[in-house]
Amino acid sequence: MNISSTLQEQAFSDPLAIRAICRNGVWKRETSGTAPGYVQANLAILPSALADDFLRFCVRNPKACPLVGISEKGSPRIPELGLDLDVRTDVPRYRVWKDGEVAEEPTNIRDLWSDDLVAFAIGCSFSFEEALISNGIRLRHVAERHNVAMYRTNIECVPAGPFSGPMVVSMRPLVPADAIRAVQITSRMPAVHGAPIHIGLPASIGIVDIEQPDYGDPTRIMPDELPVFWACGVTPQAIIEAARLKFAITHAPGCMLVTDKPNAALVAF
Amino acid sequence: MNISSTLQEQAFSDPLAIRAICRNGVWKRETSGTAPGYVQANLAILPSALADDFLRFCVRNPKACPLVGISEKGSPRIPELGLDLDVRTDVPRYRVWKDGEVAEEPTNIRDLWSDDLVAFAIGCSFSFEEALISNGIRLRHVAERHNVAMYRTNIECVPAGPFSGPMVVSMRPLVPADAIRAVQITSRMPAVHGAPIHIGLPASIGIVDIEQPDYGDPTRIMPDELPVFWACGVTPQAIIEAARLKFAITHAPGCMLVTDKPNAALVAF
Repeated sequence: MNISSTLQEQAFSDPLAIRAICRNGVWKRETSGTAPGYVQANLAILPSALADDFLRFCVRNPKACPLVGISEKGSPRIPELGLDLDVRTDVPRYRVWKDGEVAEEPTNIRDLWSDDLVAFAIGCSFSFEEALISNGIRLRHVAERHNVAMYRTNIECVPAGPFSGPMVVSMRPLVPADAIRAVQITSRMPAVHGAPIHIGLPASIGIVDIEQPDYGDPTRIMPDELPVFWACGVTPQAIIEAARLKFAITHAPGCMLVTDKPNAALVAF
Repeated sequence: MNISSTLQEQAFSDPLAIRAICRNGVWKRETSGTAPGYVQANLAILPSALADDFLRFCVRNPKACPLVGISEKGSPRIPELGLDLDVRTDVPRYRVWKDGEVAEEPTNIRDLWSDDLVAFAIGCSFSFEEALISNGIRLRHVAERHNVAMYRTNIECVPAGPFSGPMVVSMRPLVPADAIRAVQITSRMPAVHGAPIHIGLPASIGIVDIEQPDYGDPTRIMPDELPVFWACGVTPQAIIEAARLKFAITHAPGCMLVTDKPNAALVAF
């Protein structure tokens, strides 16, 4: 057994180990299911000239863009999320955006890093899904091993500078009693999207065809279930794309930044 | 201005004053809107031989029968709800049940009281409605000044001794965002029915025709609203009626026991 395969085994429980095998280029795929119990984050890296606008955008749209960490200008470190953590290498795969298009999907951004960049770590629904599952709530997309269904809504984010556009939401079908319990559980986790923003009437938030998600995979809704909608961390990525910035970097879909912060540390009360 | 009319004015803000004008027989009608900020309770008075069963019934069905107070056998006092409080006189109107039928509706039960009786005070939705309204949530039945719509469900209460039967629920139509906020608010008030027990799919809980409530008045549901259902304090009264007890006393509908306990004291966290 070589060092990499030992680390891969550890990675399923240890955030430090998964960051290590991301850093050495061994782990290049989705992080779902790794390091259970620890916060995984959406990543956005922007030139400093845009960082203030983006920071205000996050503050104004806390349900879609709940900040769990932010670097100093030019520093690839976010110590509160992991002392060793390096945003240039610790995500399995990145998206490099040029003029609003994905230019490449590298496994590290060492060569692209500069003293002018600022990194934003934004909460992710994995944290609250873990809380739902540990409360006995079955999530169909998890059981069926496909991506959560996500939709653009008619809910406009509060703009800041060049950043504006609709909120993207994720949808999980739940029987009403579980939907009520899910409101209780996720209300306690405002740093990872918090309470649902909508239940039951997709047309009210501009979703025309629930069977046709804009991102992710369709999820069946049974006759005894309601669709429950949470603000989604895809929002900031969609907003960055829509702003057609000259240059930006994000994580590739599903390839999250795995942190040392326990999910339990995000529970508000 | 005589003493009674002064007390009637005070009664709109002071629980002690409304109990006083109930006690002297001046106030004989519904208590809704009086003594805002204070807990009003459903009342059930039973012979001691049935009190243990009823107590276990309440404990087993805390959402429908949240106990806020219980007397000692033979004592008409529940000091934790008001030092002067006397369950023989302090409710505007009572229902005396004989063999499962309403035998009379007196304004006091002084002559019916005995050393063998036990009084149960059970939380009421007025407390959480006040919390919803103070959070800016509009309740249509309040705005339109009619009774809340209530329904028998197919949810069986957990039985105890002779007490068994279906849960009765109250329904308030809310837009989804308000429904989510209402879950948050009422989750914090377990002593007054707590979180909703159902949202959105009345047939799932055995409600065939939402326009035909079993108790109270119909409430319109707009196309952008969901019906939200809470366990209701009418449940214990319906259960007592169904048990066809030889003798029992309850409050008359809407004529609640007004207590000195602030609604705020029921907020769990």
